[in-house]
Amino acid sequence: MIHKYGFVRLDDCMADDLSVVNAARVSFGDRREKMNEADRGLIGFLMRERHGTPFEHNSFRFHVKCPIFVAREWFRHRIGSFNEMSGRYTEIENHGYVPEGDYCRAQVGKPGAYTFTPLDSDLADEVSAVIDVQVRHAFGTYNYLLRRGVAKEVARVVLPVGTFTEFYWTVNARALMNFLSLRTDDTAQREIRDYAAEVERIFSIKMPVTFDFWDKGGRVCP
Amino acid sequence: MIHKYGFVRLDDCMADDLSVVNAARVSFGDRREKMNEADRGLIGFLMRERHGTPFEHNSFRFHVKCPIFVAREWFRHRIGSFNEMSGRYTEIENHGYVPEGDYCRAQVGKPGAYTFTPLDSDLADEVSAVIDVQVRHAFGTYNYLLRRGVAKEVARVVLPVGTFTEFYWTVNARALMNFLSLRTDDTAQREIRDYAAEVERIFSIKMPVTFDFWDKGGRVCP
Amino acid sequence: MIHKYGFVRLDDCMADDLSVVNAARVSFGDRREKMNEADRGLIGFLMRERHGTPFEHNSFRFHVKCPIFVAREWFRHRIGSFNEMSGRYTEIENHGYVPEGDYCRAQVGKPGAYTFTPLDSDLADEVSAVIDVQVRHAFGTYNYLLRRGVAKEVARVVLPVGTFTEFYWTVNARALMNFLSLRTDDTAQREIRDYAAEVERIFSIKMPVTFDFWDKGGRVCP
Amino acid sequence: MIHKYGFVRLDDCMADDLSVVNAARVSFGDRREKMNEADRGLIGFLMRERHGTPFEHNSFRFHVKCPIFVAREWFRHRIGSFNEMSGRYTEIENHGYVPEGDYCRAQVGKPGAYTFTPLDSDLADEVSAVIDVQVRHAFGTYNYLLRRGVAKEVARVVLPVGTFTEFYWTVNARALMNFLSLRTDDTAQREIRDYAAEVERIFSIKMPVTFDFWDKGGRVCP
Repeated sequence: MIHKYGFVRLDDCMADDLSVVNAARVSFGDRREKMNEADRGLIGFLMRERHGTPFEHNSFRFHVKCPIFVAREWFRHRIGSFNEMSGRYTEIENHGYVPEGDYCRAQVGKPGAYTFTPLDSDLADEVSAVIDVQVRHAFGTYNYLLRRGVAKEVARVVLPVGTFTEFYWTVNARALMNFLSLRTDDTAQREIRDYAAEVERIFSIKMPVTFDFWDKGGRVCP
Repeated sequence: MIHKYGFVRLDDCMADDLSVVNAARVSFGDRREKMNEADRGLIGFLMRERHGTPFEHNSFRFHVKCPIFVAREWFRHRIGSFNEMSGRYTEIENHGYVPEGDYCRAQVGKPGAYTFTPLDSDLADEVSAVIDVQVRHAFGTYNYLLRRGVAKEVARVVLPVGTFTEFYWTVNARALMNFLSLRTDDTAQREIRDYAAEVERIFSIKMPVTFDFWDKGGRVCP
Repeated sequence: MIHKYGFVRLDDCMADDLSVVNAARVSFGDRREKMNEADRGLIGFLMRERHGTPFEHNSFRFHVKCPIFVAREWFRHRIGSFNEMSGRYTEIENHGYVPEGDYCRAQVGKPGAYTFTPLDSDLADEVSAVIDVQVRHAFGTYNYLLRRGVAKEVARVVLPVGTFTEFYWTVNARALMNFLSLRTDDTAQREIRDYAAEVERIFSIKMPVTFDFWDKGGRVCP
Repeated sequence: MIHKYGFVRLDDCMADDLSVVNAARVSFGDRREKMNEADRGLIGFLMRERHGTPFEHNSFRFHVKCPIFVAREWFRHRIGSFNEMSGRYTEIENHGYVPEGDYCRAQVGKPGAYTFTPLDSDLADEVSAVIDVQVRHAFGTYNYLLRRGVAKEVARVVLPVGTFTEFYWTVNARALMNFLSLRTDDTAQREIRDYAAEVERIFSIKMPVTFDFWDKGGRVCP
């Protein structure tokens, strides 16, 4: 589990490096049944020259559980499909994100150039405890409101943005590489990087040649 | 103000009914300088037959302040552009949504067919007070964490989804009508309907003929 | 073959009705391993109420060969991915569309309400012959220009819009249903309807429940 | 005119550099009425770091006339709106593209690394004449078919891809910079570069600071 309750699970995919090659080769009316060395080179060429469309003919369907503030960044990626758990229709589980250890950090510098340093260990423990209590309190109030008959969609307004949510995300490799470029970067928030790392691991297994050229070529989305 | 702190403000637009007419008339190599009665009829025809693309050649830029749970539904609309206040970069104001009066409601029925009834007035007052206290408590914890040196992006995990956020939204009339179809509907959550009503009012002023045919034709996005 | 040289071939897909169900059920934090009768009903409900996003978590990759004027209509569908044969990079085969029999037709009525009637058989034969000669002439000129050393991208300017092209198209079921709604309709050009019919046949096999509700519910994209 | 019959005309726009600044500053809950030096620097920062979304809150509506083979490349850009003249609904004017002088060129090298050299002048004249005759012949056949009562949508199959078409294109600056990056590049076909140059000129006037940082920073879309 990521952050105690979270996960990234590949639900299904239609993905291989060959589809990149064939999408590119159709320019020449050409088609491969399997990849050879020249085809590997072609993928490198496409990545380098930022010919992006051949990387779109595939699909990954992920099932994700993560805190709302992470999901909020995730959903900013418009090229892809999302369906999410609804606080209007379902009673939200009491799963909240509580940072621990060096996840309790201070922010140094100015916007666009922040760095983060761990709090000292005693303060980190206190911060963790304070957040834990606050989150529990919020869930307590939420549960109380539901028991008093308040509509779920109203009661949820007290839930913290650290509350866990769940969603399906279906996306092609081109949009996936854009997501990874931004969300595995040092400037991304540490929490979303933990999820993005798992997305990256899965991607690297399914489309190893594409991954490799992307990774070695500066991790820039083509 | 909507819900005490919220608003919808038109920041700028490039929008009139004539652009719909000309986008459609280019099919015939035709162009109008101003609209006549036949052009009104043409807009009605396009709406009825669901020829949607002529409604895309315009742009509305809105500046919105609303609770996060409302913004979350808003951002699901992928055809359009968003830039939002960031809890990583800025200290969030202590503005939280607290439902009052008949906004404190019960949910009856099952998913897909919910109806909502006001709580009785004493219970509503209690609910309102409980939520108010919970929200204040959350902001108190947030402020405390910031004072202890915790990074803004960490401290914010305790903020409720009722916290107000701000964003710019740039969108064309076709996507706008899709937004309005869904978010002014009886099945939409009452809070987002309050914002959508203001979006609708502005839209109806800027593109009155388009609005009229959309409204009278069943409020279905073309 | 369609129109002598054309085809629609399913290259790969990740598509079943279950993915629709699970994308919808995640709203309730629910998940199925296989579909039951209630799940069929759920798909009907989603289609009827036009909840479109659950139909996006799947992918079809088609390989298509068709005339350029058909491809031009196809590529207007922006939600999806395309890679096409390039007249800049490859020498175009001498494959051109020549309408025969009742494909040689007259247009009656006005824009938005055209109907088409077959020409009488002698005239149809003449029309077919005239088009055949014109197309052969164009390919002859194209080949001549190439032999004289003219760049492919320049020589191609004489090719008719009836020239066959080839492309990959990757698309999800929601965008596919939008394509089918428009391109199998009576008002669509007969030639693209021949290709759309084959797309529809493949779709109906892969997602039979979804297809059925779409087809019986008026063939409106959710 | 471009290529004798073509043009790029700005029909309307909602575009200035200030909208970029304000879309970025909303991250901090900040807003400017007019730009200062720091704001110029902010635009440079956004471009350099490839924060693309602030460049989306504006809109350009172009009216374009160009050959079909140019429009075909143009319409591959999916982020934006198009409405085009229809060969189904209107009788196409006899306007065709005929390359002249050093537009009559040879192609050297292999895909991905082509260079082009002018034909010698006599051959260029001959090529130009051959194309001119072929195009006239195609229009002659098209007109003949129409006179015989053939439907416009059928008759048009003989029209060359060099035939001029007309369309509206509405697009934001981010997608516009992506278009310009690809279509003003040396590797783009010379004909589309002529149109893209005019788009670039208009863009540079309307959003001079954005243009400047894009141009000096390597003309990479943020």
